[in-house]
Amino acid sequence: MIGRLADKNKLRAAVRSLSESEADNRVCQRIAGRIACITSTTNGGKTMATRTGSAVWEGTLKQGKGTMKLGSGAFEGPYSFSSRFEEGKGTNPEELIGAAEAGCYSMALSANLEKAGHPAKRISTTATVKLEMIGGGPKITTIDVKTEAEVPGIDEAKFREQAEHTKKTCPVSVVLAGAQINLDAKLL
Amino acid sequence: MIGRLADKNKLRAAVRSLSESEADNRVCQRIAGRIACITSTTNGGKTMATRTGSAVWEGTLKQGKGTMKLGSGAFEGPYSFSSRFEEGKGTNPEELIGAAEAGCYSMALSANLEKAGHPAKRISTTATVKLEMIGGGPKITTIDVKTEAEVPGIDEAKFREQAEHTKKTCPVSVVLAGAQINLDAKLL
Repeated sequence: MIGRLADKNKLRAAVRSLSESEADNRVCQRIAGRIACITSTTNGGKTMATRTGSAVWEGTLKQGKGTMKLGSGAFEGPYSFSSRFEEGKGTNPEELIGAAEAGCYSMALSANLEKAGHPAKRISTTATVKLEMIGGGPKITTIDVKTEAEVPGIDEAKFREQAEHTKKTCPVSVVLAGAQINLDAKLL
Repeated sequence: MIGRLADKNKLRAAVRSLSESEADNRVCQRIAGRIACITSTTNGGKTMATRTGSAVWEGTLKQGKGTMKLGSGAFEGPYSFSSRFEEGKGTNPEELIGAAEAGCYSMALSANLEKAGHPAKRISTTATVKLEMIGGGPKITTIDVKTEAEVPGIDEAKFREQAEHTKKTCPVSVVLAGAQINLDAKLL
């Protein structure tokens, strides 16, 4: 069902660079000069966790108001047209995406450095999410991930390898496939 | 550069069903029975908003601990291996993703119903995010969006059309291209 590939060797290399666990369940193909991967929906994976978030919106787009809430109860806060698209007080979906990506990245990089024999002391990450007007509609186009890590005894090359691997494999990075994710990683 | 399509007509229909603004900047192709779209990275769009989220992780995966923070300052909270993969107290990236999707969906459905001539009174949405173990690694596989809306005077078919359109076009739905998003929409 899959069409001819522009460059099968490059695609194979990209798929090999995924962890085995991912490659098992993904079908990848080069589209528009980038590698796109789709995970099988009949993967039969074991559920690790099921989490919820919710939101209520009352009224119209510009005059209305809403609240977003985390299923654990850790946070509930107001959002509005102004807090999302202008500089109004309150939260917005894009900064939640940013915190999720930063949270996933910091934790996963810690796990990957530990597996590589170099446990980190501290990893601090900021994810900047850009919302752009594309032909009349808002679109999340890029996410810039900036991380700084204290990792005793590791060399720059090994650190960079783990930082790049984490960008590609952390579950939140993988699910955010609709944006380009850029990484700026610094070993302190 | 793109291979032969299994079913060009179905693909064209799927692309037509995107809003024009999105179709302009996307290249879509059928992969493994699903439509995959890649956004051009040279879109030249106008920046509407730039949002940040951040996270710090200290220590190893299982014994370590972290905090996630929203750029607006609306929330900062602890997370851990246990709050993410077990039933420990605290937040986790997946519920932030759920809240972002629910927040985007409720707001965008309100906007779309308003444009269609039927402003909503209240839209309440919950997004359930499933994290599964796939071949040894965690993966966000599906997001179930459940919405209930009070929309005076609209008929079921018109409501359903807007609800489905919103699922496909809301910016957070679009960026979460790595998961399957399911919709259960109820007109109250």
